[in-house]
Amino acid sequence: ENILEPQPAVFRQISVPEQSKMEYCTDTGLVVPAVTPELHQQLLAAAERGGLTLERRMEVVGICASQMALMLLGGSSRLDPKNSHQRPSVVVLCGVHEQGAQGIACARHLANHGVSVLVYLHNCTKSPPVIAAELRLLQGTTATCMSQHAGLPTGPVDLLVNCLDCTKTCTAQREQPWYRSVVAWAGGSRAPVLTIDPPASGPATPGGLQSKWSLALGLPLALGEGAGRVYLCDLGIPESIFQEVGILYHPPFG
Amino acid sequence: ENILEPQPAVFRQISVPEQSKMEYCTDTGLVVPAVTPELHQQLLAAAERGGLTLERRMEVVGICASQMALMLLGGSSRLDPKNSHQRPSVVVLCGVHEQGAQGIACARHLANHGVSVLVYLHNCTKSPPVIAAELRLLQGTTATCMSQHAGLPTGPVDLLVNCLDCTKTCTAQREQPWYRSVVAWAGGSRAPVLTIDPPASGPATPGGLQSKWSLALGLPLALGEGAGRVYLCDLGIPESIFQEVGILYHPPFG
Repeated sequence: ENILEPQPAVFRQISVPEQSKMEYCTDTGLVVPAVTPELHQQLLAAAERGGLTLERRMEVVGICASQMALMLLGGSSRLDPKNSHQRPSVVVLCGVHEQGAQGIACARHLANHGVSVLVYLHNCTKSPPVIAAELRLLQGTTATCMSQHAGLPTGPVDLLVNCLDCTKTCTAQREQPWYRSVVAWAGGSRAPVLTIDPPASGPATPGGLQSKWSLALGLPLALGEGAGRVYLCDLGIPESIFQEVGILYHPPFG
Repeated sequence: ENILEPQPAVFRQISVPEQSKMEYCTDTGLVVPAVTPELHQQLLAAAERGGLTLERRMEVVGICASQMALMLLGGSSRLDPKNSHQRPSVVVLCGVHEQGAQGIACARHLANHGVSVLVYLHNCTKSPPVIAAELRLLQGTTATCMSQHAGLPTGPVDLLVNCLDCTKTCTAQREQPWYRSVVAWAGGSRAPVLTIDPPASGPATPGGLQSKWSLALGLPLALGEGAGRVYLCDLGIPESIFQEVGILYHPPFG
């Protein structure tokens, strides 16, 4: 017999410039190192320069996060026409920043799939362009949007999507009364939480929301406790752009 | 027993202004009417006005088409690290128009997932901006791009993605020598064909490529013979935009 032995499988296919504080492992055994918030920002900036605009990345995150949420809600059986009397309900909690805009994009795609969606967006006088663009698209769907946490639903909710934190203002924001009330409401709702693009401190460090799942973008940060099971979203960033910021990268997605 | 009878399931949830030439049925029984090419163009133009820019739609089609192709290739088991010696191979055939650009976006996402990808783009002196933008992003991946059909591979190919036709120039283009050579090569390769966004005449009307699967965008056109099994891609177009062009729409995706 002349059976060609396959090369030994290589499980470490991604390397980052500095020794990583934390490493993750995919269910096929691939090692995925965490990156620092600074390196993550450099990667997104290089992607932007390379033509992967914020608009494109917003659409990628919106689709992938909504596909994950639909899977967590039980997939297509929950949206079967014979089940139309019990449509799944999702509340998306958004701060006023890029992460919040990602939440609104996710809400739009969920509503487009027939999910009953409510978006809570912290009331601020002036929305940044990235939020305004997503709100404009959201208005065309059946999703409802509110900015008073007093109006958050009292009935059962199937899933919470948490986009309250951004990487920069997170600690200061968590001191604010509105943030505390929303986190208290979320705790009381007893609905499982999916956090999109959590900050390096992790979603549930003092004052934040304990997550059952987290969705990291491109490459994960070293997420602290309370991140739950970590998933990785493929932002579609080409390999050469990873190399530009010193990351030797091979797609871990399979 | 006081079991609340669920309302009777409604399977006709989408209606179009003119009597549709053709209707499709999803595997959950929902009726999806075909639309005319003119109405399809109006829908995309309304989506553009509503903020769903060509860039966003390009990213949506690129991701959804690549996810479908990965599923047709056998899913994650084909991309397992222990299988790295037999990576799936895909050839993407692109004309010089928006449909060709959609193929290049799909190629990028496939390459980002570790698939071995070759893009054939008909050689033309000046690429429209939509093609140039996708080529720029493709260059950062491991995909290769060629414009001479003589160089198309002679070895086995796992899947062909067909984006040769656009809705307008299709009949004239099919008379051209390069088109005939590419279709002849594709027939000889014996690889199954997935056509993205096929023209109303259907991919395999005289001179075109017989498809095993077709991926329609938003709502299907009345695809003629040779379209194979028709799938629908959710472009993320909000319901109000369907209403703007006279279509009563409820998402059929589940």
